[in-house]
Amino acid sequence: MKIIGTFAETRALATGAVGLVPTMGFLHEGHVSLMERARRVCDTLVASLYVNPTQFDERGDFDRYPRDLDRDAAIAAAAGVDILFAPDDDEMYPNHPVTAVSLPALTDRMEGAHRPGHFEGVATVVAKLLAGIQPQTAFFGRKDAQQLAVISSMAADLSFPVDIVGGSIVREHDGLALSSRNIFIENRDAACTLSSALMTAADAYERGVVDGAELESLVVETVKGADVEYVELADARTTERLVSLDRPAFLAIAARVGSVRLIDNVFFSGSPLAADRGTNLDAPSLLYGQGDA
Amino acid sequence: MKIIGTFAETRALATGAVGLVPTMGFLHEGHVSLMERARRVCDTLVASLYVNPTQFDERGDFDRYPRDLDRDAAIAAAAGVDILFAPDDDEMYPNHPVTAVSLPALTDRMEGAHRPGHFEGVATVVAKLLAGIQPQTAFFGRKDAQQLAVISSMAADLSFPVDIVGGSIVREHDGLALSSRNIFIENRDAACTLSSALMTAADAYERGVVDGAELESLVVETVKGADVEYVELADARTTERLVSLDRPAFLAIAARVGSVRLIDNVFFSGSPLAADRGTNLDAPSLLYGQGDA
Repeated sequence: MKIIGTFAETRALATGAVGLVPTMGFLHEGHVSLMERARRVCDTLVASLYVNPTQFDERGDFDRYPRDLDRDAAIAAAAGVDILFAPDDDEMYPNHPVTAVSLPALTDRMEGAHRPGHFEGVATVVAKLLAGIQPQTAFFGRKDAQQLAVISSMAADLSFPVDIVGGSIVREHDGLALSSRNIFIENRDAACTLSSALMTAADAYERGVVDGAELESLVVETVKGADVEYVELADARTTERLVSLDRPAFLAIAARVGSVRLIDNVFFSGSPLAADRGTNLDAPSLLYGQGDA
Repeated sequence: MKIIGTFAETRALATGAVGLVPTMGFLHEGHVSLMERARRVCDTLVASLYVNPTQFDERGDFDRYPRDLDRDAAIAAAAGVDILFAPDDDEMYPNHPVTAVSLPALTDRMEGAHRPGHFEGVATVVAKLLAGIQPQTAFFGRKDAQQLAVISSMAADLSFPVDIVGGSIVREHDGLALSSRNIFIENRDAACTLSSALMTAADAYERGVVDGAELESLVVETVKGADVEYVELADARTTERLVSLDRPAFLAIAARVGSVRLIDNVFFSGSPLAADRGTNLDAPSLLYGQGDA
């Protein structure tokens, strides 16, 4: 695996069918699952690693976001990555950027409403990665379900010749969705009630409950010890709130547990619609000290 | 020359160093000069032809914009174009677009102030062309000087691996800057005072006048029979108004002559700064009936 700092060198080295897994580093099994999936369908697998300042709505969150290049390089290499594109700020933003890519119709709710500017930062930096690396396929986790909708629409609207693929959530053995920010969680029991509440709603759907408000209420009532910001059943493509679970959708929650803001969801897709609850790990994840294994 | 309707087929046929000349058709010698310049430096020369509805701020202007594919194909083929990319609306906007590319800092004045939404439409559609065709070089006329600044910043900010090249204005023998809209001009003498006013200011610069307000006033005072919307000396990169002509810049005018809105400018670049007045044709342009020659 090569660690490359420039778009130009990445393009020069990336031949054949190029797959891209964009990340902000501090990799976990969620990223690894995307890399392994990409590895099977690509000639050159590129992972990008950049903690993008323009998508953080809180300076403190950006400052404390975990960073460890050596750890990430070891994990990426083991997952089959050919090129770890790890640009510095001068490569990503050589000039003060004046261009914004925005999708207001998809981002006026949920994460977009609670994190001003977040999705503009995401859409713009992902457009940069697609333009600068020119992958044929790009892989994103379903944990950021609204982000996946935003990026899918952005890529299609801007005619990028890329397939956007969403990968299932990977969870700790106790159900907690993997996130680089999990290392800051102090009240694990409370954090785990997010996923158990979503699973309760998925159970209800499988018993025949399709009413959006009822599914949302089930989640809200089951979460304990967390300050819920929103629970919403959203159209998987448009992110519009659904009154009935009758099309591809995700049931999403955002909540604060102590100082940590967490998001999670259950994705519904296929015909008939089936719940993608994610996959639970058997053992504690890489996040807790096995990164250099 | 092939006429192609899809991005995918255009990409498949465009090999080697790809040059792109985006147009809205009804080609004239300004477009031809860009094509001939591109022809010299590219392996595959692609010209795009699409009257993009999202960049028109006036429905009437869109409706009456001149269109003639056969005429344009003949001119493009004679100019050395390999692929004329002429998509229909379904290829360009298969879904209702929800993505906007915007550069508010460069577009809050001049054309952007007088044509709400215009530059968002331009930046978005050009991003589509760069993403979908993947040219190494793209050519734009300097007549749309603010547009050239917008596209240059957009391409750099989004990390498109493309060189944006600006070509000099081509003018009728009487100085009128070529524009597909010129066929609607009824008061030619008034229209010609735009360019003669700009040349008067260029003469003044060459005599040592560098004060922005003085150069602008010279233009305003020299135009006759036209309703001036703005005259501005603008930084060529940032489009900010300049108090002094001390860096690459353009002195721009927009005015209505009867029912036609016209723009023109003199570009200043190089070291020392020299006026690019454009090139006058010896005979009436292609616009007046020689397109199938």
